[in-house]
Amino acid sequence: MNIILLSGGSGKRLWPLSNDVRSKQFIKIFKNNQGDYDSMVQRVYRQIKAVDSDARVTIATSKSQVSSIKNQLGAEVGISIEPCRRDTFPAIALAAFYLADVQQIEKDEPVVVCPVDPYVDASYFEALKELSDLAQNGDGMSLMGIEPTYPSEKYGYIIPNSADKVSKVVTFKEKPTEAVAREYIDKGALWNGGIFAFKLSYILKIAEELTGFDNYKDLYDNYASLTKISFDYAVVEKENSLRVMRFSGQWKDLGTWNTLTEAMDETIIGNGVMNDECENVHIINEMDVPVLAMGLKDVVISASPDGILVSDKAQSSYIKPYVDKIDQRIMFAETSWGSFKIIDVEADSLTVKVMLKKGNSMKYHSHKHRDEIWTVVEGEGMTVVDGVEEKVSIGNVIRLPRGCKHTIKALTDIRLIEVQCGQEISVEDKEVFDL
Amino acid sequence: MNIILLSGGSGKRLWPLSNDVRSKQFIKIFKNNQGDYDSMVQRVYRQIKAVDSDARVTIATSKSQVSSIKNQLGAEVGISIEPCRRDTFPAIALAAFYLADVQQIEKDEPVVVCPVDPYVDASYFEALKELSDLAQNGDGMSLMGIEPTYPSEKYGYIIPNSADKVSKVVTFKEKPTEAVAREYIDKGALWNGGIFAFKLSYILKIAEELTGFDNYKDLYDNYASLTKISFDYAVVEKENSLRVMRFSGQWKDLGTWNTLTEAMDETIIGNGVMNDECENVHIINEMDVPVLAMGLKDVVISASPDGILVSDKAQSSYIKPYVDKIDQRIMFAETSWGSFKIIDVEADSLTVKVMLKKGNSMKYHSHKHRDEIWTVVEGEGMTVVDGVEEKVSIGNVIRLPRGCKHTIKALTDIRLIEVQCGQEISVEDKEVFDL
Repeated sequence: MNIILLSGGSGKRLWPLSNDVRSKQFIKIFKNNQGDYDSMVQRVYRQIKAVDSDARVTIATSKSQVSSIKNQLGAEVGISIEPCRRDTFPAIALAAFYLADVQQIEKDEPVVVCPVDPYVDASYFEALKELSDLAQNGDGMSLMGIEPTYPSEKYGYIIPNSADKVSKVVTFKEKPTEAVAREYIDKGALWNGGIFAFKLSYILKIAEELTGFDNYKDLYDNYASLTKISFDYAVVEKENSLRVMRFSGQWKDLGTWNTLTEAMDETIIGNGVMNDECENVHIINEMDVPVLAMGLKDVVISASPDGILVSDKAQSSYIKPYVDKIDQRIMFAETSWGSFKIIDVEADSLTVKVMLKKGNSMKYHSHKHRDEIWTVVEGEGMTVVDGVEEKVSIGNVIRLPRGCKHTIKALTDIRLIEVQCGQEISVEDKEVFDL
Repeated sequence: MNIILLSGGSGKRLWPLSNDVRSKQFIKIFKNNQGDYDSMVQRVYRQIKAVDSDARVTIATSKSQVSSIKNQLGAEVGISIEPCRRDTFPAIALAAFYLADVQQIEKDEPVVVCPVDPYVDASYFEALKELSDLAQNGDGMSLMGIEPTYPSEKYGYIIPNSADKVSKVVTFKEKPTEAVAREYIDKGALWNGGIFAFKLSYILKIAEELTGFDNYKDLYDNYASLTKISFDYAVVEKENSLRVMRFSGQWKDLGTWNTLTEAMDETIIGNGVMNDECENVHIINEMDVPVLAMGLKDVVISASPDGILVSDKAQSSYIKPYVDKIDQRIMFAETSWGSFKIIDVEADSLTVKVMLKKGNSMKYHSHKHRDEIWTVVEGEGMTVVDGVEEKVSIGNVIRLPRGCKHTIKALTDIRLIEVQCGQEISVEDKEVFDL
């Protein structure tokens, strides 16, 4: 099975664990067999491989997610990188050319496209395989429709022309009111979960027609010039001969703290305590200090170095405008080379804990407006400061006056405490050089 | 008026703002006229001075609170320092000798003793003046009894022999059940708030009888040998001729988050946001990152570098056993010379932000098992490292290998980032030297 997982943009609905640089699909909340925690991306990838160990998985995403994906899934997974965000049709078109030109799969092979973040069990991936087979044995496009469990206002609806497992699509309906949703469901409507399958040749043809490019490189290079348009508008709603396959297994959208905590195996992740009077309370704590919950009901508490959310679960769907108003510096992030966490902020200084994974280097760079002092607190590395190499280890101090060119290579996993001193500390103040 | 304020021990009932080193009376939560926040101690001191600008205030407390008191009240206030904790009778005895021998007040002057932490208004201090006058114009001891507002199980009760403003005390009753409390109140009982007045000579005589010491120095030097006993047991309940003066003004014990938040002028202190669906919610946030509260009712959220409490207000009275179980390093504290805050903890390193107020020095000291690296991030200071003085300012780095003797004097307010590296980092690993 070829599967393209659409890994959407960053969002604030799961603040403080998701933010402008951390997307919800990378939050580690699902206990795995090793007693460790998996993210949504890791869970889905593991589930796909369990159902079809030969599955070729490609993640369609933006540059900003590449390091998180590689950190979490390793180097084997295919990644189709959108140079900029252009909605789902360009993303799927680019991923299709990536499969054809980079991965060089045959054009008559079927491809399944679905979001990276539904919360599902193995039956979903079994169904994707059926959908893939359906695409292989026919032309055009097949969709998966999810049997609704309640009259949701959050989803679009697919109206099929029969109650058969596979039937023709009569029409699509936009997100309805609850009353209208109830009518649709009475008529046998299905949720549109954005799950499609087709032969690669099918989508390549449409991609070429609509973008004017016929190969990966040209589409990639000209990606910014494409119009933002969703796959639903550009392709699905214009297609006359669509089939839909019913799916009645578990399928949840974990887009809010309310739905996310329903899917958690435990009530506490991280350092947390709650008393017996707590009812339906979840604590997700990524900070080093404890959270104590007393006598709460239907509440989610989520704490990260970016902030602390305490929300009634139903109300947690409405946090976005409040989070948008919070003007908080990004306090931590995973990067391709490791991670960083801001541990102190003063008027003329910033203190950061930097972790580089073994074998990684920073870019060789300098700053105009700040001095930096690194203290190695774990591991070994090789610094280069104005061309001079030096091996460093725990307790060593490296002074980096403004203007000096510097980098460090991690000989083992290495941690530094970096104190930045200056009156105009900014991420913009960085000039990169070849070493 | 001479007034002894008993400043009790540290407690965990207001965790995470109070802990083993920070007592509740020093938490800044009351908005003052300058738009700034006062602690309980500061509020009470300001109120006393407003009612009687000549009042001589002495705080009876332990060593550990002296720096907080000086930081918050300045150098003028009298402090009677208990070398160790021995309950209220020895504390009051020591404070009495402090007034006689150190402050040299006349032995026939009246003295009022009361706790430092009731939440009261000016009428309370007017009443204390009346109580003081009562003591001046009679012998023995006078108490203040507080008109109960509900049948509380938290207080002891005083049974007076009449409903007059001042009457003789018939007897005392221990903390009763609610039903029994209701009976007491029906008979005109008053709450025992631990507020006493007497001539200094009266208490000195009893102190000498019960401790065997007749002056401040001897009592101080032998303080550890005294038996722990409360003033109520040692003195009040043995006194046959007691008068009680009724007080019907505002009087609250701010011992739990529930009662404390009732006394707050604002619903949010620190970086916090709540949506309109929140009802009777308080946020007290001492962290640098924001707290967002959504759709909560009757909840207090309190966050400090030590931890995060989210509690139903009624349940907040029961946090102590849960807090006792939390094994959390003290992450920040005020000291006589400034403050410190632990900003990062790793296996073999600890990073601390240290603030020294202008004119203060650390003790000249060394560590056996750790190196330290200081980076100055604000202000100017003079370091001494193994006898060598050096002036330092922002951006300067001071390396302190294990074994070296070191100190810094703050020439201005100064901030350091101190990285401690070593395998056995402990506050015990410190040897102090004369400079």
